[in-house]
Amino acid sequence: MPTRLSSYFLRTLREDPSDAEVTSHRLLVRAGYIRRQAPGIFAWLPIGLRVKNKIETIVREEMAESGAFEVHFPALLPREPYEVTGRWDEYGDGLFRLQDRKGSDLLLAPTHEEVFTLLVKDLYNSYKDLPLSIYQIQDKYRDEARPRAGLLRGREFTMKDAYSFDYTDAGLDLSYQAQRDAYERIFTRLGLEYVIVKADAGAMGGSRSEEFLHPTPIGEDTFVRSAGGYAANVEAFTTLVPPVIDWTALPAAEVHDTPDTPTIQTLVDSANANHPRTDGREWTAADTLKNIVLALTNLDGTRELVIVGVPGDRDVDLKRAEVVFAPAEVEAANPGDLAKHPGLVTGYIGPWAPAGAVLGDTSATGIRYLVDPRVVDGTAWITGANENGRHVFGLVAGRDFAVDGTAEVANVRAGDPAPDGSGPVELARGVEIGHVFQLGRKYAEALGLKVLDENGKLVTVTMGSYGIGITRILALLAELNNDPKGLIWPVSVAPFDVHVIAAGRDEIVFETAAAVAATLEATGREVLYDDRRKVSPGVKFGDAELIGVPQIVIVGRGAVDGIVELWDRRTGERIQCAVDNLGAHFA
Amino acid sequence: MPTRLSSYFLRTLREDPSDAEVTSHRLLVRAGYIRRQAPGIFAWLPIGLRVKNKIETIVREEMAESGAFEVHFPALLPREPYEVTGRWDEYGDGLFRLQDRKGSDLLLAPTHEEVFTLLVKDLYNSYKDLPLSIYQIQDKYRDEARPRAGLLRGREFTMKDAYSFDYTDAGLDLSYQAQRDAYERIFTRLGLEYVIVKADAGAMGGSRSEEFLHPTPIGEDTFVRSAGGYAANVEAFTTLVPPVIDWTALPAAEVHDTPDTPTIQTLVDSANANHPRTDGREWTAADTLKNIVLALTNLDGTRELVIVGVPGDRDVDLKRAEVVFAPAEVEAANPGDLAKHPGLVTGYIGPWAPAGAVLGDTSATGIRYLVDPRVVDGTAWITGANENGRHVFGLVAGRDFAVDGTAEVANVRAGDPAPDGSGPVELARGVEIGHVFQLGRKYAEALGLKVLDENGKLVTVTMGSYGIGITRILALLAELNNDPKGLIWPVSVAPFDVHVIAAGRDEIVFETAAAVAATLEATGREVLYDDRRKVSPGVKFGDAELIGVPQIVIVGRGAVDGIVELWDRRTGERIQCAVDNLGAHFA
Repeated sequence: MPTRLSSYFLRTLREDPSDAEVTSHRLLVRAGYIRRQAPGIFAWLPIGLRVKNKIETIVREEMAESGAFEVHFPALLPREPYEVTGRWDEYGDGLFRLQDRKGSDLLLAPTHEEVFTLLVKDLYNSYKDLPLSIYQIQDKYRDEARPRAGLLRGREFTMKDAYSFDYTDAGLDLSYQAQRDAYERIFTRLGLEYVIVKADAGAMGGSRSEEFLHPTPIGEDTFVRSAGGYAANVEAFTTLVPPVIDWTALPAAEVHDTPDTPTIQTLVDSANANHPRTDGREWTAADTLKNIVLALTNLDGTRELVIVGVPGDRDVDLKRAEVVFAPAEVEAANPGDLAKHPGLVTGYIGPWAPAGAVLGDTSATGIRYLVDPRVVDGTAWITGANENGRHVFGLVAGRDFAVDGTAEVANVRAGDPAPDGSGPVELARGVEIGHVFQLGRKYAEALGLKVLDENGKLVTVTMGSYGIGITRILALLAELNNDPKGLIWPVSVAPFDVHVIAAGRDEIVFETAAAVAATLEATGREVLYDDRRKVSPGVKFGDAELIGVPQIVIVGRGAVDGIVELWDRRTGERIQCAVDNLGAHFA
Repeated sequence: MPTRLSSYFLRTLREDPSDAEVTSHRLLVRAGYIRRQAPGIFAWLPIGLRVKNKIETIVREEMAESGAFEVHFPALLPREPYEVTGRWDEYGDGLFRLQDRKGSDLLLAPTHEEVFTLLVKDLYNSYKDLPLSIYQIQDKYRDEARPRAGLLRGREFTMKDAYSFDYTDAGLDLSYQAQRDAYERIFTRLGLEYVIVKADAGAMGGSRSEEFLHPTPIGEDTFVRSAGGYAANVEAFTTLVPPVIDWTALPAAEVHDTPDTPTIQTLVDSANANHPRTDGREWTAADTLKNIVLALTNLDGTRELVIVGVPGDRDVDLKRAEVVFAPAEVEAANPGDLAKHPGLVTGYIGPWAPAGAVLGDTSATGIRYLVDPRVVDGTAWITGANENGRHVFGLVAGRDFAVDGTAEVANVRAGDPAPDGSGPVELARGVEIGHVFQLGRKYAEALGLKVLDENGKLVTVTMGSYGIGITRILALLAELNNDPKGLIWPVSVAPFDVHVIAAGRDEIVFETAAAVAATLEATGREVLYDDRRKVSPGVKFGDAELIGVPQIVIVGRGAVDGIVELWDRRTGERIQCAVDNLGAHFA
C-alpha cells in the first residue's frame, strides 16, 4: 500500500527552525524528519525513521558480510567495569552518570568496550572460539559541552559499534582489515566520499587507528594529506625528523642583550639589526626556539608544569598537545603557575642559563623540557637566556643543552613534509564518519579476558573497536544532498523510491495517480502518494522538493490522455511519459 | 546462508545461572539468549535478538494494520514536560533522574505521554488532522524497587507504546477500539492466551482502561472473573452495593463490656457467649465493623490519617487502597501516628462514642472516616465503643453514625458478586502483557494541546495510551514454552525455523547436512546448522533441546541412504524422511 500523504504523520514547515545552525538540521526539521527534544536530543518522525532504517540496513548487511554477529547491550550500565578500565573518570564531564534508588552508580554508555569484553570473557575460553567480531546498533550518550549542528554532534545518537577479539596480533590485523573493508563498502553504498586517515589513539589506548573522514569545509576535524597518499588527522601527524648535524665547526654560543624582545617578531627584528647573520641571510622566526610553559591537570587532580620548545615560526597546537599528554588536560600555564618558579623569566625562557635552573635537567627545575622533533642534535638556535632582556645566540642542541624528550605539539602547516616521504601535505577539513581501531590488549588485560592457546597456555586477548555514527551519517547525507528548495536523497537511503503527486482537481487525476502509485508499489517500489484534496499543485510541488524523494511522478492535466510527468528531483529534468510506459522508466 | 553453529556467537551453559528466579530467566541465560548486566538490566545475544526482532515485527505489522505510524523518541528527556503533568514527582523512586554538565534535570523516560502530546501540539492544529495514532518500539527505564524474574520485570525493557489523538469522545472510542483489536491480533499471532480485564486508571488518570492479562499462577497480578463474562483486576473490582435497609424496626444500640476482645475473633466469641443473637443464629465476623487507621503520605510529603471501616470478615487490601488514595502512598498507621489521637483506643475504635471524638465528623477528629460500600444505611453492626474493653452492639449506619464516604479498600474474595450482576467471581493470577487506556484530556490540558473544531473553536484533544511490553512477552513465551530439557519456541517467534544437526563423523553426514541446510534456507526457511566437528551427537541433541527451535532435522547414519530424521521439539516425535521429500514436510 502506498503511503498516503493525506493521512501520513508528516507536516512540513514554511519557516526555518530558529535553533538550526546547519543546513541538514534546518531541512530535516522543516521537511518533517526530526524534532528537537532538548539540546542535542532529537525525536524521529515516521519519514525520518525510514531513512535511518535504510542506513541501518546497509550497515547490517555489510556487518553480516564481514562475519560479525549482532547483539544488543543496554544503554544503562553499572559503574564497575568502567571503573576498572579508568574510563569512569577519564570521560570527565562527557559522561552521563546517575544513581539508582539504592545509591548504586550507573552510567549511560558512550561506548561499550568494557561490557563486550566481559561478555566474551563470560562465554569464551579457548583460542578455538576466536576470531570473533560482534556489533550492535544502539543509542549512545555523551554529555557534549556544546551539542551543536543538529544531528552532527548530539548528546544522544545512534551508533554501530563493533568489537573484534583475537588471540594473536596477526589475527587482529585480519579482523581489523575485515571491518575496514566493510566500512569502505558501506560508505560506497551510501555514496559518501571518504578519506582514510591515520588517527591518534586518544583516550582509547591501543595501536593502529584510522578514521574515515568525509572531506568537507564544514567538518570539525582537520586532516593532512600528501599527493603521495599519506593521510592523517592533525593529531596523528608526525614530523619528518631532519638528520642530526655535525656541530664541530659551529661557533660557541653567545649571550646578547636584547632589550624589549618578549615576542618572536621583536626578537627577530632586534637580531637582524644588532647581530646580523654572517652568511648574508636574515634571521627568521624559524631560527628561534620558543619555549612555552604548559600546565597539565592529571586524572588524580594534580597539576604539573611542562615546558615545550618549538621553532619560533610555529605555535603549540593544544589539540596535538592533548594527545601527547593524554589523559591529562592541557592548558597554557597561568601567572600563578609561573610565580612558583622565579627562575622562569617570562618572554626569555630558554634551555640554557649561566647560573641556576637549566631546562632539560628536571633534577634542577622539577619541570620536564620537551622539544619539537625538528630540534635535533646540532641545530643552532636563538633562544631565551633566562634573564630579562637577554637571549643566547647559536645555542646548539646536544652540545649546549639537553632535553627530556620530544613532543609532537607544534602546529602542522600546509607544505610540511609527510613523515613517509610522500611529499608535502595540504590541510583539509572533514567530518568523522567512521573509526577503526586496534585496541590491543588494554581492555582484555584490565578485565582479565584470556583464552587458552594451542599449547594450553593462557594468553590475553587482543581487541579492535569499530564505530560508525548512524545518525551523524544521516545528517551528513542531508548536508551534502540538497539545494535551496530542499533535500535530495541518494537512492540508497531515500525514504521512498517514488513520490506521486495528484496535481489537479479532476477525479481522473486522482484515479490515475492512485493507480500509478498502486502499480509502482506493487512492483516493489516504496511510494509516497500526495493524495491531498484541498492542497494546490504548487504547494504539493514545494513539499515534494522539500521532502526530497529522488523520483517524482506528477499526474496532472495529461491524465485524461494517459500522460504523466517524470520529475528528477536532482537534475530538475521533467519528461512526459505514458502511464503504460512508467514501468520501463523505473526499471 | 544457514547460520553455522561452529562459528556462531552462541554458547550454552550446562549449569543454571545462580541468580535466576524463574524458568524463563534460567533457560534464556543457559541457552545463550541473554546475559545479565546489572539487576534488571540485560544484554541480548544474537539468538535472543532474533526472537526479539520477530516479536517486534509482529507488533509493527499489526500497528501498521491499525493505521498507526511509527516514530522514535529518545530515552533521555528533559524534566520540564514531566514537571508540568506532575509525573516528575509522582513517579517517586521509580524514575531514573540525572543532571547534565550544566545542571539541567533530565530523566530516563518510563513512558512518553508528555513528549508525544507536545509533538502533536507542535505539528497539528485542526480537527482535520485527526484522528492520529503514533507509536514507537523503544527501550524504557523504571527504577524498580525489586527487579526480579529476569525479563519479566526489568529496569530497562523494550516497549511498544502507542498514543492516539482525537477531538471527540466518540473518536477516542474508535481509536481505542482499533488499538484493542490490534492487541487481540498480536496476542493471537503470538499464541498467547489473554483475558481482557477492567483496570484501574492508576497514576495515569483518565477513564476507560483495560489490561490484557495472560492467566498463569506465576503472574504478579490478581484478577477476578465471573462465569457471566465480567473481568477486572483486583484494584478495579467494585463492590455490588446491597440495597439500603429500613431501620425503623431496629432496636436501639447498646454498649456492652467486652473485656479482652481486641481482635475480631475474640469479639465474636465474647458476643456469642455473653450477648447471643435473638434470632437463633450465631454472631459472625461479618456482623462486626472493623475500623482501621491508615496513614497516607501525600506527594508534598505531608502525612494524613484516614480511618476505613470494613466488615470484620474482610481485610484492607493495600493495593486497592493505593488506587483509592493515589497518588498518596498508603500504609497502616504506626504507634506514633496513633499516639497523637488519644481518642482512638486501639482495638476498640468505632464510629460512635458516648463522649468525645465521633468518626464521620472530621470537624471533631480531623480524620476522614470512609466505609466499605456494603455498609449501607440501615445495616447494624457490632463495633468499637472507643473505650477500652467496650463495644457497641446494633449500631445502625445512617441512624447512629455518619461517614465521609465509601472506599473500595476491602479485599476481594472468590464468590463475591460481580458488580454487573453476572454472578459470583473467581480469583486468578496473570501477567500483564498489554494495557489500553483512555487518558482523556488530562495530558492535553496540562500541555495545552488544542485544535480548531468544525466551528473554528479551540477544543482540547482527547488521548489514549497503549502499551505492550516486548521483552516481557518474550520472557513469558519462554516461561510458557519449555520442558525440563529446554525451550520450545512457538513457530511465530522461533529464532530459526529449522535446526539441522550433523550427527556423525563421516564426511557424507556433513555433506548431506550442509546440503539439507542450504536447500531449506534457499526455500525460505531460516536455518541453524550444527556443523561442529568435535562435538558428540549427544551434546548436539542436548543443545538443540535447550535452544528450542521447533523443527529439528537430524542427519546421521541414514545419510548414506538419503534418509534423515525429523524431530518435532514440542511433541518429541521423530520420523524418518527421505532427503528428497524434506520439502513436503516443511510445506
